[in-house]
Amino acid sequence: MKLQRSEDVESRKVDMPGAIGCQVRRLVDEAEGAPNFAMRLFEVAPDGHTPRHSHPYEHELYIVEGAGVILEGDVAHPIARGDVIFVAPDDVHQFRNTGDVPLKFLCLVPNSYKDLPATLAPECGVED
Amino acid sequence: MKLQRSEDVESRKVDMPGAIGCQVRRLVDEAEGAPNFAMRLFEVAPDGHTPRHSHPYEHELYIVEGAGVILEGDVAHPIARGDVIFVAPDDVHQFRNTGDVPLKFLCLVPNSYKDLPATLAPECGVED
Repeated sequence: MKLQRSEDVESRKVDMPGAIGCQVRRLVDEAEGAPNFAMRLFEVAPDGHTPRHSHPYEHELYIVEGAGVILEGDVAHPIARGDVIFVAPDDVHQFRNTGDVPLKFLCLVPNSYKDLPATLAPECGVED
Repeated sequence: MKLQRSEDVESRKVDMPGAIGCQVRRLVDEAEGAPNFAMRLFEVAPDGHTPRHSHPYEHELYIVEGAGVILEGDVAHPIARGDVIFVAPDDVHQFRNTGDVPLKFLCLVPNSYKDLPATLAPECGVED
């Protein structure tokens, strides 16, 4: 068993193309011996966003703090603390922080994600 | 993509032997098409607890609200909002709510858990 305060886990800048103001903490992954899937905690600064992209693996997501939108293709859905989202493989998606405080969410992926490519989608349908 | 408020997902009583005052919401699972793992939200009432047990699959856990302890074998570790826990396969574990409000945590498991047995451990090391 391994127990940690999430704020004690190293926070790293997300340097993927299309990511603005995004940090990530790898809460549980293969380093802990997790055999099947990984838990990451993302933090998006006000006015920041994740890449608008898709990939051939799923996300299971839980909004921990803050508010914003998730884009499903070009459609923006409001999100807030306590919302849960399943992003199916190949769904185009993007998180955007529309609030005044950091948007924090858990994002879980299968371990196989490291071997699979993400495809950046063009920005459209939303004013930057 | 599927987006839900977690409180809109049906809450069911956990009827496993050894569970007292426990409810569960299945936030994401095979019903949503999740191919690899499932996200559940547990709620343990004050003075309630989950079974003291082990099983041959892992948990990835995140404390959403409330406070209590997790037993690692016979050793009780305090837990609170924002804590993250990896329970390795076959680790004996139990959640106990020691606070005045519900203890809420996310518990993720691989889809294979349905085919694998859980083993109830005798209560010891902690006063009921």
